[in-house]
Amino acid sequence: MVAQENIIIENVTLAIGATKLKYKDRNDLLLMLLPPATTVAGVFTKSNCPSAPVEYCREILHHGQARALIVNAGNANAFTGQAGRNTVSHIVNAISQLLHCNSKEVFIASTGVIGEPLDADSISKLLPKLLQTAKVDNWYEAAKAIMTTDRTSKAICRTFNYEGIDISIAAIAKGAGMIAPDMATMLCFIATDADIKSEILQTLLQKAVDNSFNNITIDSDTSTSDTVLLFATGSASNNKVAAVDDPLAQMFCDELTMLCKDLALQIVMDGEGASHLIKIEICGAINDASAKKIGFSIANSPLVKTAIAGNDANWGRVIMAIGKAGEPADRDKLMINFGPYCVACDGARSPHYNEAALTEYMKNYQIDIKVDMGLGQGSAEIYTCDLTSEYISINADYRS
Amino acid sequence: MVAQENIIIENVTLAIGATKLKYKDRNDLLLMLLPPATTVAGVFTKSNCPSAPVEYCREILHHGQARALIVNAGNANAFTGQAGRNTVSHIVNAISQLLHCNSKEVFIASTGVIGEPLDADSISKLLPKLLQTAKVDNWYEAAKAIMTTDRTSKAICRTFNYEGIDISIAAIAKGAGMIAPDMATMLCFIATDADIKSEILQTLLQKAVDNSFNNITIDSDTSTSDTVLLFATGSASNNKVAAVDDPLAQMFCDELTMLCKDLALQIVMDGEGASHLIKIEICGAINDASAKKIGFSIANSPLVKTAIAGNDANWGRVIMAIGKAGEPADRDKLMINFGPYCVACDGARSPHYNEAALTEYMKNYQIDIKVDMGLGQGSAEIYTCDLTSEYISINADYRS
Repeated sequence: MVAQENIIIENVTLAIGATKLKYKDRNDLLLMLLPPATTVAGVFTKSNCPSAPVEYCREILHHGQARALIVNAGNANAFTGQAGRNTVSHIVNAISQLLHCNSKEVFIASTGVIGEPLDADSISKLLPKLLQTAKVDNWYEAAKAIMTTDRTSKAICRTFNYEGIDISIAAIAKGAGMIAPDMATMLCFIATDADIKSEILQTLLQKAVDNSFNNITIDSDTSTSDTVLLFATGSASNNKVAAVDDPLAQMFCDELTMLCKDLALQIVMDGEGASHLIKIEICGAINDASAKKIGFSIANSPLVKTAIAGNDANWGRVIMAIGKAGEPADRDKLMINFGPYCVACDGARSPHYNEAALTEYMKNYQIDIKVDMGLGQGSAEIYTCDLTSEYISINADYRS
Repeated sequence: MVAQENIIIENVTLAIGATKLKYKDRNDLLLMLLPPATTVAGVFTKSNCPSAPVEYCREILHHGQARALIVNAGNANAFTGQAGRNTVSHIVNAISQLLHCNSKEVFIASTGVIGEPLDADSISKLLPKLLQTAKVDNWYEAAKAIMTTDRTSKAICRTFNYEGIDISIAAIAKGAGMIAPDMATMLCFIATDADIKSEILQTLLQKAVDNSFNNITIDSDTSTSDTVLLFATGSASNNKVAAVDDPLAQMFCDELTMLCKDLALQIVMDGEGASHLIKIEICGAINDASAKKIGFSIANSPLVKTAIAGNDANWGRVIMAIGKAGEPADRDKLMINFGPYCVACDGARSPHYNEAALTEYMKNYQIDIKVDMGLGQGSAEIYTCDLTSEYISINADYRS
């Protein structure tokens, strides 16, 4: 991970602006411009009530090509009916006219309040200026412009070498609440200079998302607007990747997954009101799907999350959450660890249980909970954060 | 409902005591004594990691007869291994010896901290005194003795007349957190003077629980110890009910359901930290099961619950929760009401939307959210409470 070094993906430029719609004193608009022949892949919310931008992106994705991305923060343009769809058309058409490209090559995402009409003009009138000011070294400012309740902006870049060619992947993300699979509720925009066919790109992105964003949860809530888009410009001039078993596809997928995992963790650490990062490792379940379900049952339990907020090693609540998952479990075969300390085994509290050591351990920022179900080979690794009074404060008055 | 009038079920006596285990200055032990030939029915947690008392009760339930019930508060005797099972045997055998009855006629329930060993002697040494002091008019004190984080004790009695015979049903319950189906996490003990075969009693109880306790949620968490027991003494001397289609069975089931509903609402209103009672009515879903799932998706959404805590009519989060339920939904056919106000229809905010009126409405203690899915005939009615900072405070330091 290249932390605060400059992020650049050749031929990809970014511009930011301020609509002044919800936020009066900050940027809330991002335009990303992509070179011709850029391929695209996308993964979207599984919500049955998606936003107008998500509906539009789903429709045009199969076209496989992208020239621009427009993102606004503060208004999700979700549950806004025909007016919301008109807003999307208006903005997308304005951009395609300015760029002389097909409107199916213009992607759009919105995040913020649901159900408020979004005025297209407030965005389209800023487009000419955005076009003039777009530049390659603008990723960190772009990351700031798409924030809502995030405390920190999230931008990242990875570079790897394949047969003498340097390939880079850069990404920005936002998300701090309404975070749960599938998919982890958030926006993430990724660009790479690799040359990869859009169908292959889609397969690789789906795999990376399944192993990163879909393993985190903040509050079990799923947004109407979740969007991950991956653009591949081909500027690195590698031999075009046209098959999933291409060695570069494998390597790219690994790098992409690490990049997504890193961003997913940044999102959890930025969880609304969070004071602890919680890693939940399940092993010994009957299969991976069962392990994942048990992991999420623990990760989404308000009682587990509040206990950890209070630095309380209340492993009884972990048992409770395992029990309610509805997955095969044998109480007497379970083993539960908090960090290095075994707290429960053989159907009872561990004979080595040491409250003082545990209390000390719970003061750490990261809490590792490991559960061995003792039944099979299934495993999962889930990340979440604790549930604090600050989460309530943030969400009890978000609209006002 | 007979509010604070005296509750008596003929021949059923109750005694209370103090183990001083967790609570130093209050009663935490209940012994209920039942006359010979009392039949029994029970519904228990669906947790895969149940407590030792739940395991024991499940084992003896098919015997169909009950003479006593012992309940302690403060220690759940859950995840306590062989020692926990020994504690149950020890207490149950002590009671059966004192009463000269079969140990399969002694029921037991425990609530409180999970994973702490429970000393049998701390309970059994108090039994002789409890036997001496048991009395018929002790239901309110019994309700207080089984409380944990409850702010109010919960006791209730209904009486109805069938062919000239008065039949009474009395119950006590506890529960304020770790409340979700199935079954609503709590303890509830019911006694009636009706004469009903145990198999029939079981059918009627299951039906009543499905239509009451299984429609509430506080925090989506499910306890290891949920127990509802119903004892029928036969003292009313009706013709023994031996078939589900007996007219008295129907009438009894209706009365029992109303009694359970009343207690379920008392539990929600006592939800940890709750400042609003929330009623969620779903109609127009493709079937009842789908309606129930959508209702619980709304009721368990931390974002919906915190918005209501902040008196915020954030109906966008209701859309979000409908969308994440995974059930058939058509955004453009949905209609959502907050109390008398339509907030959303035709895929957008209602044209009659009035923020000022809504803000005023949200100050009410009870908030009614009604969702018409516009798809079919399925309906459900779910109750929950809001999520406040006080919930966090209560649960961040429960063990300490």
